[in-house]
Amino acid sequence: MKILVLNSGSSSIKFQLFLMQNEESIASGIIEQIGAEKSRAVLKANGKVYEKFLPIQDHHEGLEVMNELFRESNTLHDLSELDGIGHRIVHGGENFFSSMLVNDEVIKKIEETSPLAPLHNPGHIAGIKNAMQSSKNVPHVVVFDTVFHQSMPEYAYRYALPYEICKEHHIRKYGFHGTSHNYVCKRAATLMGIDHDKFNAISLHLGNGASVCAVQNGKSVDTSMGLSPLEGLIMGTRSGDIDPAALVYLLNANVLKWDEIDTFLNKKSGLFGICGSSDMRDVVAKMQSDERAKLAFDMFCYRVKKYIGAYYAVLGRVDAIIFTGGIGENAPNTRQKICDDLKILGIHINHDLNFDTSNSSERCLDEDDARTKVFVIPTNEELEIARETKKIIENRGK
Amino acid sequence: MKILVLNSGSSSIKFQLFLMQNEESIASGIIEQIGAEKSRAVLKANGKVYEKFLPIQDHHEGLEVMNELFRESNTLHDLSELDGIGHRIVHGGENFFSSMLVNDEVIKKIEETSPLAPLHNPGHIAGIKNAMQSSKNVPHVVVFDTVFHQSMPEYAYRYALPYEICKEHHIRKYGFHGTSHNYVCKRAATLMGIDHDKFNAISLHLGNGASVCAVQNGKSVDTSMGLSPLEGLIMGTRSGDIDPAALVYLLNANVLKWDEIDTFLNKKSGLFGICGSSDMRDVVAKMQSDERAKLAFDMFCYRVKKYIGAYYAVLGRVDAIIFTGGIGENAPNTRQKICDDLKILGIHINHDLNFDTSNSSERCLDEDDARTKVFVIPTNEELEIARETKKIIENRGK
Repeated sequence: MKILVLNSGSSSIKFQLFLMQNEESIASGIIEQIGAEKSRAVLKANGKVYEKFLPIQDHHEGLEVMNELFRESNTLHDLSELDGIGHRIVHGGENFFSSMLVNDEVIKKIEETSPLAPLHNPGHIAGIKNAMQSSKNVPHVVVFDTVFHQSMPEYAYRYALPYEICKEHHIRKYGFHGTSHNYVCKRAATLMGIDHDKFNAISLHLGNGASVCAVQNGKSVDTSMGLSPLEGLIMGTRSGDIDPAALVYLLNANVLKWDEIDTFLNKKSGLFGICGSSDMRDVVAKMQSDERAKLAFDMFCYRVKKYIGAYYAVLGRVDAIIFTGGIGENAPNTRQKICDDLKILGIHINHDLNFDTSNSSERCLDEDDARTKVFVIPTNEELEIARETKKIIENRGK
Repeated sequence: MKILVLNSGSSSIKFQLFLMQNEESIASGIIEQIGAEKSRAVLKANGKVYEKFLPIQDHHEGLEVMNELFRESNTLHDLSELDGIGHRIVHGGENFFSSMLVNDEVIKKIEETSPLAPLHNPGHIAGIKNAMQSSKNVPHVVVFDTVFHQSMPEYAYRYALPYEICKEHHIRKYGFHGTSHNYVCKRAATLMGIDHDKFNAISLHLGNGASVCAVQNGKSVDTSMGLSPLEGLIMGTRSGDIDPAALVYLLNANVLKWDEIDTFLNKKSGLFGICGSSDMRDVVAKMQSDERAKLAFDMFCYRVKKYIGAYYAVLGRVDAIIFTGGIGENAPNTRQKICDDLKILGIHINHDLNFDTSNSSERCLDEDDARTKVFVIPTNEELEIARETKKIIENRGK
């Protein structure tokens, strides 16, 4: 069974091809700078890299080029050979409570959700429509970043804003990174030998975008991202939580115009806003000699620590803390700083295990006296999407 | 030693007169609706109430009427008899790190801070200037809501916004209710027989405005309010924490204009925004039959619970949780809901003690197995301001 996973952005298409018998990834790649004069297409398979530079006008042409690369690499001769295509969708709004087989109504509902995710959903829809044209008879499935969080109780997902306006305009906490949080929690439960539906965890997806999820009995009960991926933790270029009155103040002082707020908070803030670097590797590299980089590092870790405490109070019992994402998997000093002084919550990681960079696989970092397990679990959202796609396809018509 | 405490708002002056030998309050009252056609002035002393309705144009006339009431009640014949006047100031910005004896420079600095607190500081300044005119030779002291939080480390008070803009425009977390948090923490430390400078606590000031403070070794190290009193907990009419992207969304959808944001978040949100009642007593009264009131109650308590967890992680060791403010002191079901399911943090309150409404004094609510003490401490910001005023006056010229 061959399943292709597509992640279509506004100017890029990421793809990965899975052989589901053994959940093996047999090819992966990206088409990027769609619409630019010189776009780039790259595919990795069988230890080789296939690369093309050429103008790619739109998602339709992008998928054509992806097809050519599949043929060249001998991994797939035509999309019609596929058993299914799974599409990553960032925002399912209030319309979607599970992954879905794509039909016209589903596409219409994703289009309706676009105002909530103007940077993401239009690209997803272009990807779905073009992929469907190029692969008639292949079933398509949409898998949403928001669905895992649909189990949040209302008191966790509502904002204390005027209720009617929130209902009418679908203003609420949705949460993101759901596919990742779900994947790593299932892995950690398996590693601990606990049934997934009895597993309590705090999942930390720390990458350029970053979020925390409180998982109770295998279900998301709260998460740090909100209506948009802006809320919560400090990120590469996103502010995370702030006093909203700061915006009013900057508007009144004519420092900011209202139509600049979005860029200000999403592109000019976060680690970048504090110290000029958005990549945690750069922040860590220069923090010995750069006070502002040290401040950015400290602020990032401090905010994560507070969310761990908050979700500890929410969950009552926590089986494991899970680190994932680019920072979570690869930044031991970030993990160390976050976990330091959390013995009160039963968290105590072993310094040597944590700093052992030779090990990049799933691993546990605890000292013997820790009451709460701490895992590093490399995330695999593409595999999770492929699994969801397989499940939905196999359950068709049942 | 007689000290008068003044809390001058934009259209009101609250006052309280203390005899400092025994810290006795001998008179208190309010001048309200200053500037309206029919203002009201009331003073309570010796078990009697003295009340006047008359037009009061400004703070100068307000203080004149206060003087008349003092004379009528035989508590004070002239302001010149006072040993000192203490003024409550909401916002000290980055200019003030302690209570201060008032002089021209101090007044200028408070005026400079007015953009950060446009609803409060101008009223305070009017109060100070007029009171100084009416009481030449009496020393005046300003006591700030923000000063207690000046001990926060930078990684706790900075926002992940562009650093230079924050520095230039003094955008940072300041925190409020400092006088109250400080007062109740000192009381709880005394009740536990712990030195104040070794005392760790989470102080919950829950009233129409509400904030949480993490206190380590007697000092504030973090608090839920920020640049303004909007951030953090859900309040009577204030939203507390939200995804700032919700504002961008409502602006883009033309639901909100940028100059309406302030009113939207500060006056139309919070408990009121969720269920139409801003007073927790009303919310609790109707929540059996009103789903939205129940939601408002649950959201309020849930948010407090998350801050307790967050500050637990920050502090590492917590000697006591302290409830104060109108809700904190008088709403047992709110306290119960907040403390339920927090045994993981060593919090376990006794239901009967908590619901014993016959006791309104300082009290401890714990079950025997609780590791973290839970106190109800009625706050007394006026007494704390009087004490600060006394201390500053006595240390003059030392």
